[in-house]
Amino acid sequence: MNEIKLDKKVNFDNIKDKVRVFAPATVANMICGFDILGFAVNEPGDEVKMYRVAEPGVRIRSIAGDDGRLPLDADRNTVSACVKMLLSDLGVADTIGVEIELIKHMPIGSGLGSSSASTVAGLYAINALLGAPLTKEELMPYCVEGERLACGHGHADNVAPALMGGVTLIRGQEALDIVKLPVPGELYAGIVFPQVDVPTRDARQLIKDKVLLKDAVVQWGNIAGLIAGLFQNDYDLIGRSMQDVLIEPTRAILIPEFYEMKRIALECGALSFGISGSGPSVVAISRGADIARVATAKIKEHLSSKEIDSYQYVSAVNVEGPRLLDFDA
Amino acid sequence: MNEIKLDKKVNFDNIKDKVRVFAPATVANMICGFDILGFAVNEPGDEVKMYRVAEPGVRIRSIAGDDGRLPLDADRNTVSACVKMLLSDLGVADTIGVEIELIKHMPIGSGLGSSSASTVAGLYAINALLGAPLTKEELMPYCVEGERLACGHGHADNVAPALMGGVTLIRGQEALDIVKLPVPGELYAGIVFPQVDVPTRDARQLIKDKVLLKDAVVQWGNIAGLIAGLFQNDYDLIGRSMQDVLIEPTRAILIPEFYEMKRIALECGALSFGISGSGPSVVAISRGADIARVATAKIKEHLSSKEIDSYQYVSAVNVEGPRLLDFDA
Repeated sequence: MNEIKLDKKVNFDNIKDKVRVFAPATVANMICGFDILGFAVNEPGDEVKMYRVAEPGVRIRSIAGDDGRLPLDADRNTVSACVKMLLSDLGVADTIGVEIELIKHMPIGSGLGSSSASTVAGLYAINALLGAPLTKEELMPYCVEGERLACGHGHADNVAPALMGGVTLIRGQEALDIVKLPVPGELYAGIVFPQVDVPTRDARQLIKDKVLLKDAVVQWGNIAGLIAGLFQNDYDLIGRSMQDVLIEPTRAILIPEFYEMKRIALECGALSFGISGSGPSVVAISRGADIARVATAKIKEHLSSKEIDSYQYVSAVNVEGPRLLDFDA
Repeated sequence: MNEIKLDKKVNFDNIKDKVRVFAPATVANMICGFDILGFAVNEPGDEVKMYRVAEPGVRIRSIAGDDGRLPLDADRNTVSACVKMLLSDLGVADTIGVEIELIKHMPIGSGLGSSSASTVAGLYAINALLGAPLTKEELMPYCVEGERLACGHGHADNVAPALMGGVTLIRGQEALDIVKLPVPGELYAGIVFPQVDVPTRDARQLIKDKVLLKDAVVQWGNIAGLIAGLFQNDYDLIGRSMQDVLIEPTRAILIPEFYEMKRIALECGALSFGISGSGPSVVAISRGADIARVATAKIKEHLSSKEIDSYQYVSAVNVEGPRLLDFDA
């Protein structure tokens, strides 16, 4: 984290007693844009309640919704570790004390950016608690570092849309260069999370190091078409473009009933269908909520017939990213 | 050409006696978008004069500016062969007679879409002569077929911008899907054509069939950034994005002084510098004409010092494609 240079001061007059933050789940890759595209949804997402306390340091009070899988140790928990890092870079690690309640409203290992949602919620919360000394752009490197702690690699394809909202492009990964893209208003995601386990690391290892140039050309033609479609509000172009010839054929192997789910979604009128991140969640992108709703319901029904439980979510693209929640709501 | 289905009728009342058409040179790939992107320039370009004659059939009267390299035989010449094909598909091959003068204002084998400019000029001319029964979209497959005749492969990355004007995206190659992209008004190309011979076929054969996925990810991040930059009039983003990590390192080997020319262009303030199509022409993309002018002049000077002759052109992006010229001008 030596690359993060902060020249910000905390104004102690602005510090709040407590904040409550929601940060959204995200669909990385947006089907055709492996490692560069992603978008946020309105649900599911994670929640952080953060309290200022007298004793300096960062502590986790409680974690809900994780089935006991996440560490309460503040140095090992990604959320608290990132918060500590930011406090340290702001020069207030020895003076500020906070306690965190993490409430996970989404499953871990779903391919929906679960760790990113928690990290972004935590960092957005500490920044809000401190009176917002940092911009979202300045928070981004901390979010990426959180992803590195959580997953072993610092990809921004989940944290970028979770923090910025909307559809984000990671133009450059090494020197982080994130571009926020426009979102056509009727773009909906119908997400189904089948209850099967596909760890991100395994899903990545399946992918070959080399690809055929001619396939890469097809892929980047589609990526370019998707970007143009987003700017032009051209749903047909968006649909034609959201095809993944490179990664999906490999990752689909790990997801039971993938091609049958795809058939169902497209038959329901979805613009496109594919894997969310590294899976096993899948996403039907559609114009309007109705198609997304029908597609996810039919997919859930099909999975049930195969004795696979699933969660489903239908949401427009979330354009704001994390948001402050009323504490007493 | 069995895939082309035309359901168009020629209205004999609309046929003109003669037309004169200019079609622009093109910069395929637009540095980072191998096989999918391209743009047209205002100069150089090719010119076709077409005359209706009584005797049915298509004949070449003359070709200027080709140093005798192009065939006058109407079946072997790409321009006349495409015109014949179109007349045949319109059902008027046995009734309409035309004679063609092809005036090449640009060098062959330059990497500037020389054959495409001629093909597009010829097809635009015959369509105009016949009273424009076809739209540009309907002409496109004939242009692609012309490219196949000329180069042995039916890539649309030169004919698409030559015919449509502006910056074009070939989203799909197999089922041709061409998207016209917006062009920021201050985008200029400074082109230098060094007098060295790099046949397209050789330049393609150098390129490896397989690429590293991680390099492809960098490339499609750049492609996506370029598309976003074009829509947002963001010259910095356009410049950051126009980097080719996949093709340039191989093709640059064939172009003497490539990296020195690149250094000069970037030092002059060009947004980006790279190979036009398969080379040997190179292009400095810049904001405004001045930088393009200075960069090309300095590059030409450098090449002269190495005893390499060169042509240079400075042009805004051509947004209209081919145009009718006054016959007596």
